[in-house]
Amino acid sequence: MSSNNNAYVPGLEGIIGAQTAISMVDGANGRLVYQGYVIADLAQEMSFEEVAFLLWEGRLPNRSELDALSSELAGSRDLTQAAVAALDALPPDTDPMDVLRSVVSVQGVEHRLAKPTRPLAIHATASFPTILATFHRRQVGMESVKPRRDLGHAANYLYMMNGKEASPEIVRALNTYLVLLADHGMNASTFTARVVASTESDLTSCLVGAIGALKGPAHGGAPSAVIEQLELIGTAENAEPWMREARKKKVKFMGFGHRVYRVYDPRAKILKEMCRQMNPKFYELATRVEEVALKILHEEHPERPQSVNVEFYSAGVLQAIGLPKEFFTPTFAVSRVAGWSAHVLEQAAHNRIIRPQSEYIGPEPRKPVPLAERG
Amino acid sequence: MSSNNNAYVPGLEGIIGAQTAISMVDGANGRLVYQGYVIADLAQEMSFEEVAFLLWEGRLPNRSELDALSSELAGSRDLTQAAVAALDALPPDTDPMDVLRSVVSVQGVEHRLAKPTRPLAIHATASFPTILATFHRRQVGMESVKPRRDLGHAANYLYMMNGKEASPEIVRALNTYLVLLADHGMNASTFTARVVASTESDLTSCLVGAIGALKGPAHGGAPSAVIEQLELIGTAENAEPWMREARKKKVKFMGFGHRVYRVYDPRAKILKEMCRQMNPKFYELATRVEEVALKILHEEHPERPQSVNVEFYSAGVLQAIGLPKEFFTPTFAVSRVAGWSAHVLEQAAHNRIIRPQSEYIGPEPRKPVPLAERG
Repeated sequence: MSSNNNAYVPGLEGIIGAQTAISMVDGANGRLVYQGYVIADLAQEMSFEEVAFLLWEGRLPNRSELDALSSELAGSRDLTQAAVAALDALPPDTDPMDVLRSVVSVQGVEHRLAKPTRPLAIHATASFPTILATFHRRQVGMESVKPRRDLGHAANYLYMMNGKEASPEIVRALNTYLVLLADHGMNASTFTARVVASTESDLTSCLVGAIGALKGPAHGGAPSAVIEQLELIGTAENAEPWMREARKKKVKFMGFGHRVYRVYDPRAKILKEMCRQMNPKFYELATRVEEVALKILHEEHPERPQSVNVEFYSAGVLQAIGLPKEFFTPTFAVSRVAGWSAHVLEQAAHNRIIRPQSEYIGPEPRKPVPLAERG
Repeated sequence: MSSNNNAYVPGLEGIIGAQTAISMVDGANGRLVYQGYVIADLAQEMSFEEVAFLLWEGRLPNRSELDALSSELAGSRDLTQAAVAALDALPPDTDPMDVLRSVVSVQGVEHRLAKPTRPLAIHATASFPTILATFHRRQVGMESVKPRRDLGHAANYLYMMNGKEASPEIVRALNTYLVLLADHGMNASTFTARVVASTESDLTSCLVGAIGALKGPAHGGAPSAVIEQLELIGTAENAEPWMREARKKKVKFMGFGHRVYRVYDPRAKILKEMCRQMNPKFYELATRVEEVALKILHEEHPERPQSVNVEFYSAGVLQAIGLPKEFFTPTFAVSRVAGWSAHVLEQAAHNRIIRPQSEYIGPEPRKPVPLAERG
């Protein structure tokens, strides 16, 4: 029925969805590269702002470019009147990912279609922390806190969430998290953003689609589930009995497995070390759970490479930073919006509509039976 | 750099993105099939409600099933308080596609992730006309009109838009339009919905992504551009001189070309005949423009098959129905939401995360220069 000779590959596994200079996931060697820089060289040294510039522009900024970007971000953090009204109307128990999806959409409404640009990418990136923090403050019954121009992106997010400045260590940890998660090749949310961009739609439409994709537990929606599972396990001693019992009931271990990495995820490695320093209680339990999970998974499928994914130790870092677990996935979006918008700009610059075929597996055409004669 | 041996195919042209029983675009023979029924057999005979049932369930409903669906749709047309508040907060000159994207998002917020289901598909489908009509009434400074339980989907949309019942001929025409546009294989918005669904996200996230993709002028965003171009041409006599002049300036002819059809689009054929009957002034101009455009395009590329696409004669039908041109693409969404949600249900039932590879074309890894040393 199909007009081509290619076989269907479920999930498009191994099919190239895009060419990109933005990042490379080198799964065989456990390397993640942003525009020619290995993640381990960026994670500890660079601010999120520098890395966002890198993703958008393909090179690191000099001091004056970095200052200009920081100032543009600081000037774009306020929400529109419509965005504030929409946010205020949402029920206080709304999933923060749905808040983000909705308020980003309202914040980005336009009168006439605008092409994606870097200034629009900066505006969108600036707005994510404000949206989440404003909603969080309302949820806990506190006044919202205006963004502060003198704080960097990570510091400002925590300041608006908590109503007070976070310590330099905590800010540094969040900054590293934001750098580590900012891009990752052709994951499902980035691919969504590129498909939407390929129709020549606007940046907000691309980002709203990407937020929806990130929400799915098979993509970014799992880190709070990691915490929930660790809470159920409770102690390092309990890990093996709990997990063997769970496996009998086909319970999935949260935070394991990735389609691309065949060795240790380089982001997980950095996050694990951060957990060791910042969240020793989590670290003790989590490392034991990792050990037991890999043992059990290996027993079940010795032929499959297995490892923790980025969400496993992310959970411990975000917990140490003091973010509520419902904000783990939204904080992933605070980081990834830099990558999404870079991909949208790249797609728009070399566009061809992304429109695969489908293979029809329905019935052969026949005449419809009139309504009166249907049983 | 890539771990596979497949060559990159821009736009995934010819790659199978999904297997589906929902529809088949038989481009070689100019046939569109929904779940085993040829579109020409459905367009004149079936209500949109019957076709939505067909897309969701894989078979036509009997009388009592159809009544149950109609009643469920009628009972799901009201907006939530939050959706009304968000809608009221949007500037009156907002692009109606952005209104739809934002208010569908707010209408669908949830406390905890819900799996896509047919009742949720019905709720979403029911809400699209209410959102658009409520916004339209506010734009023109008139009171919004409550949906009426006794009216079918097409009739009710026009009733809410205009504040009065439309004639049976007009309702019938809109119904046919809604049937014709309800699904179309693996187009970019449907593919977006399936990618989002593949992360196990919720139905609203899938639909919001799809709306964003449909907005793009390379996908559904073109029908108002068709009208605008015809207005510039003005008369049938002016068509050839205007279009030859336009072509010299590389102006694109709106409403021509499609990746899949190699013969006349079966939907365009039906819509063209509807234009002849309902909109003779448009028909006279449009048929002449079609003739001249195909002649010029053939002269330029005799090797390429060329034809009008569905948006060309859609514009004349929607104009005859009396919809403002800013509502042409949103009305496309009123129809296509049936197909989108059917694809989301199908994807969720046989899921594998849609996560292609990317091919890295950036620089080779090197050490970053410290900020102080950057020129």
